Amino acid sequence: MRARDLLADLPVVGLDDPITEAARLLARHDLPGVIVVDAAGVPVAVLPGPQVLRLAVPAYCQDDPALARVVDEAHADELLGRLHGLVVRDALPPHPSELPVTDPDATVLELAALMARTRSPIVAVMDGGRLAGAVTLRALLARMLAA
Amino acid sequence: MRARDLLADLPVVGLDDPITEAARLLARHDLPGVIVVDAAGVPVAVLPGPQVLRLAVPAYCQDDPALARVVDEAHADELLGRLHGLVVRDALPPHPSELPVTDPDATVLELAALMARTRSPIVAVMDGGRLAGAVTLRALLARMLAA
Repeated sequence: MRARDLLADLPVVGLDDPITEAARLLARHDLPGVIVVDAAGVPVAVLPGPQVLRLAVPAYCQDDPALARVVDEAHADELLGRLHGLVVRDALPPHPSELPVTDPDATVLELAALMARTRSPIVAVMDGGRLAGAVTLRALLARMLAA
Repeated sequence: MRARDLLADLPVVGLDDPITEAARLLARHDLPGVIVVDAAGVPVAVLPGPQVLRLAVPAYCQDDPALARVVDEAHADELLGRLHGLVVRDALPPHPSELPVTDPDATVLELAALMARTRSPIVAVMDGGRLAGAVTLRALLARMLAA
């Protein structure tokens, strides 16, 4: 059982795609995160869903729940409005940590260690310089539980 | 638009339930995480999916991807085997950070701020001391995009 046996095709976004496109993919495909690729199609990050929201929240109430409560009721379209004009690159941390990326020969142990260490429910699988697909936490858990 | 309008029923696990039960819920319902409740049914944590895997990975290869590669190919059932006898409590961090918990009156802005700050794709909603349900990142994004 290797990464190649657990591969799924997941949608990806580019660094300069609108952040609303990432939001749409997350919602439509019920993904825990979306793989971000550079112009050459090489994964540069896995963008976790909650990170997309960070850009939609005004700075003054990011760290203070009470402020978000006392302002006038925010409407869903206002949140979306704050995302307009922003691209995926804007949502990524300035200093990315270890990437959840491996190769098709990765064992289930490697996949589990990589997901645990990077806290990513998605691992991108590269084969010969191109993205071959991804392994999701769900696929790995389902395989473990069926074993 | 308040938390009460976005509520979904999500399965929960107890602190002393087997960790394999949490794994089963994550895989079966394709959840990004599972709400953990105490004996009184009050949420004490949201357990992210990748955290469950951490317990399945032997300590000697948690932080070293190379070690996970060089050991004999690990089988999925060995990973599962390492989870036997462990309970949900074992998978939680010793010092929990802010809980993604709010009340039915939370605005979409509060929900977004809470998800972004706690990095949780699930927010538990308490109503009068009992768990009323949860709001998922997906539900919030879908609402934003439909607005």
